[in-house]
Amino acid sequence: METSALQNARYKYQPKLPAILSHSIEEVALSFGEPTASAADSEALAEMFKLSYGKPIASFVKGKNEKIKRPLTVGVILSGGQAPGGHNVIAGLYDGLKKGNANSALLGFLGGPSGLLEDRAVEFTGAIIDEYRNTGGFDIIGSGRTKIETPEQFAAALTTAKKRKLDAVVIIGGDDSNTNAALLTEYFAANNLETQVIGCPKTIDGDLKNEYIEASFGFDTAAKTYSELIGNIERDAASAGKYWHFIKLMGRSASHITLECGLQTRPNVCLISEEVEAKNSSMTQIVEQICSSVVKRAENKINFGVVLIPEGLIEFVPEMKKLIKELNDLMADYGDELTEKTSFVDQINWLDNRLSGEANALFKSLPSEIAQQLLADRDPHGNVQVSRIDTEKLLIGMAEKKLKELKNSGAYKGKFSALAHFFGYEGRSAFPSNFDADYCYSLGFTAFVLIASGLTGYISSVRNLTAPAEKWIPGGIPLTMMMNMERRHGSPKPVIKKALVELEGKPFKTLAENREKWAADTCYQFPGAIQYYGPSDVCDQPTKTLILEHS
Amino acid sequence: METSALQNARYKYQPKLPAILSHSIEEVALSFGEPTASAADSEALAEMFKLSYGKPIASFVKGKNEKIKRPLTVGVILSGGQAPGGHNVIAGLYDGLKKGNANSALLGFLGGPSGLLEDRAVEFTGAIIDEYRNTGGFDIIGSGRTKIETPEQFAAALTTAKKRKLDAVVIIGGDDSNTNAALLTEYFAANNLETQVIGCPKTIDGDLKNEYIEASFGFDTAAKTYSELIGNIERDAASAGKYWHFIKLMGRSASHITLECGLQTRPNVCLISEEVEAKNSSMTQIVEQICSSVVKRAENKINFGVVLIPEGLIEFVPEMKKLIKELNDLMADYGDELTEKTSFVDQINWLDNRLSGEANALFKSLPSEIAQQLLADRDPHGNVQVSRIDTEKLLIGMAEKKLKELKNSGAYKGKFSALAHFFGYEGRSAFPSNFDADYCYSLGFTAFVLIASGLTGYISSVRNLTAPAEKWIPGGIPLTMMMNMERRHGSPKPVIKKALVELEGKPFKTLAENREKWAADTCYQFPGAIQYYGPSDVCDQPTKTLILEHS
Repeated sequence: METSALQNARYKYQPKLPAILSHSIEEVALSFGEPTASAADSEALAEMFKLSYGKPIASFVKGKNEKIKRPLTVGVILSGGQAPGGHNVIAGLYDGLKKGNANSALLGFLGGPSGLLEDRAVEFTGAIIDEYRNTGGFDIIGSGRTKIETPEQFAAALTTAKKRKLDAVVIIGGDDSNTNAALLTEYFAANNLETQVIGCPKTIDGDLKNEYIEASFGFDTAAKTYSELIGNIERDAASAGKYWHFIKLMGRSASHITLECGLQTRPNVCLISEEVEAKNSSMTQIVEQICSSVVKRAENKINFGVVLIPEGLIEFVPEMKKLIKELNDLMADYGDELTEKTSFVDQINWLDNRLSGEANALFKSLPSEIAQQLLADRDPHGNVQVSRIDTEKLLIGMAEKKLKELKNSGAYKGKFSALAHFFGYEGRSAFPSNFDADYCYSLGFTAFVLIASGLTGYISSVRNLTAPAEKWIPGGIPLTMMMNMERRHGSPKPVIKKALVELEGKPFKTLAENREKWAADTCYQFPGAIQYYGPSDVCDQPTKTLILEHS
Repeated sequence: METSALQNARYKYQPKLPAILSHSIEEVALSFGEPTASAADSEALAEMFKLSYGKPIASFVKGKNEKIKRPLTVGVILSGGQAPGGHNVIAGLYDGLKKGNANSALLGFLGGPSGLLEDRAVEFTGAIIDEYRNTGGFDIIGSGRTKIETPEQFAAALTTAKKRKLDAVVIIGGDDSNTNAALLTEYFAANNLETQVIGCPKTIDGDLKNEYIEASFGFDTAAKTYSELIGNIERDAASAGKYWHFIKLMGRSASHITLECGLQTRPNVCLISEEVEAKNSSMTQIVEQICSSVVKRAENKINFGVVLIPEGLIEFVPEMKKLIKELNDLMADYGDELTEKTSFVDQINWLDNRLSGEANALFKSLPSEIAQQLLADRDPHGNVQVSRIDTEKLLIGMAEKKLKELKNSGAYKGKFSALAHFFGYEGRSAFPSNFDADYCYSLGFTAFVLIASGLTGYISSVRNLTAPAEKWIPGGIPLTMMMNMERRHGSPKPVIKKALVELEGKPFKTLAENREKWAADTCYQFPGAIQYYGPSDVCDQPTKTLILEHS
């Protein structure tokens, strides 16, 4: 395969490691802290994770590690949506394993967790790994969204682990996949299988984080890629002076991506789902916030602007959430009846008698394309596919209507012409930034040390990420430490707590302090394309979120 | 204003100049060739451009240039859509002027040609220029789409030129703007005004080129920015293995952008408008081409892919062109009648009696959203706004229908799930690549030499662009040399000939030779983000189009 000039150049990049990992690995020993408790619901979790609950945090210290040179067979899985740097986690893990013992083997299970369940795997060679170093995507083995949930699935995982004589399985994934890793740890232990389980924190959404996981990998690159595009559009908007750009950004629940992009590009409006929910904002209020910026700018003869919208926004609008819940419940109970109605008018009439008054009023107030989308696109469980709803177009339609009213009342004299964008797939498989390349490689290498040291039920952790890589602090965090109990599909489940945007945190507060000015004035900042070479302040800076959270 | 790390770094970049311009400017003399003829219609053009037709090509040679140090007052205009590097044309022009004589002045007319007509201008200072060096966008003075067409507009331009005592006006724009420059040259000469007129070749579309204009500026950066995104999406598609991405790319008429992006990223399908027109392809045939790739890949259990679509495609489909022309004609004659029909059904019935049989059949076969769009979105002249038509969604809808038929007949057994994208605004105002930064700066500097040497009616030309910048060949090409007569709005007009994709040219032939393989296999190439620093083969390569055209 002929590869691009950048890809060829990136092959030569040697990712940086924390100092302790870049010397002789025989001198990397583990030191353990006190037993740990879960994020909440410790009693219930201690009961569910009898054999794996409450392990101590593992730190790496200089010392003799007898175990590190034994030959190992390890399997690795990429789980869920792509995030830049996944290939480097595997490369770091591979290099660590081979550094430990040339006879160690790394298997890649194909197509996500189903590869483990169905025992479809490839054994990595140096040549394979070299083809994927510092590249984006998950195509080295593919990914998948299968979850390990049923007794049959757990048994299948165990069968493969036994058959392949796996010393360990590394699951590279988000909060759900790492919850799976915790469950698998307990299951293997309960079945006297010595296969260890180690997780790695992946997700561009940035919502797998806590005191010990400062960032999930891929967030840095994805946010920077979207910020490049937003900055380019801002500059275009300011040059042409005639469009309002409504830009929706991927991220189903948490708004970290939108917040980070907002801090990097300083748009006129940056909506944050968590704030919308906390303030119990209505769709009308959100549209008023946007129109307030449009009106203020028009007073200064500025008829352009940029609005950032998190993909999951409408799920956080309490009235919309209520509407969607009512629709989902109706579909679950009477889905077939509704499906039989072939015309939209018939569907509206059918819903008229069944939705609550408030939900019905909101439903009827939506632009008809959006209302139709709500009914038409449903996932295999019959739920509304929120990601298919064109929130950006919904907001444009509602803003146009509101501005017309304001114009009629004399309160607005500008011109409003809007364009819609959605960025998501553009950033999930980009070449990892230097930060993500280094961070992922370090996470993979750290996973190796945890495995070689005999640990199970841990997530690979690399901290102190705002410092240069050599000062990063690698270690292992017990998976149960990040867990709590949440209701899922009506019953309590042990899950890793999702980190939503903290309204009291510095990143959001920085946005909140500046947004009035950004709404009225043009304070755009243009980050440009991710640079892999050149001045360090251009190439090696972590996200603004990370810097603010740790300043 | 706080600027980004990349912007700060780019301020320090010193664009490269052709060797002859990087030494003492007193030694840059002009040498002239033979009188030139226009691209076609020489008699008619010689008649229309009595005072400015047929000038010789101007080359730069080492020699004494007496005129180059005189103080000058020059005005500059940014015309039309943004293209990366516009700020550097102005910086090159400014630096040249100041190098010639510290008392020379450069005025920037605000908001495009209307700034000249209404005499709205700013005088550049070093501080202003420094804030915009090597940045994207046209926000230094803004751009506009006003054309200088009416006698009143020509008179207004003359009034401003006189009042401001302009030695020259530089018009930075595409084919239409440079046609304007030619007309203004003639008008000024006919009115005994000594203000010279110089054009600069700008457009991301890449359709302003010929033997002497190897590329219009901005094409390089825009195509590379879109290719970054396409490559990222290809990698994502290959990793997830479940989506076909239909990506529409900006460029209203010529398909150079799509062709260049196709060569850079090797998608499964890359549609070229010029080929569609030449082959007289129907919508059905285009959809069959796409489905042929979908089916072939599905036979190998590959259910993902990437399709590139030039924005102007449907205007090149002869049957669509006919339909759009009929619609435009009907709207021109009976627009009000149609507008009165408030329901889509009434509109269809109204059209039923008025469209020709073929056009009516095609219109009725379109997905209803698209048909509605055709009627709803019209420009101020009542014409169909082709750029508003979601060609990518039209093709997805038609492909879904076709694949369903193929599935029913047993000829297709795959899964087809498609996502639509449109890239345009993301690339027009990106930080210019090193190539565009150097090329634009050289074009601006060359424009200064042409002005200082007393030339009018020329376009700034920098050739030999596949060589390193020091070997580039600057000079001046008479605007009339690039012109011919074309029918516009029913009457013959002198215009600069648009360069469409040559089906016999190497760039298209390279696509054509490879596309069967690319359609069936996965041969994606991932160019990644534009790099400004690092290895030269990553940072300084011109487009594949340019390399192939000049190899």
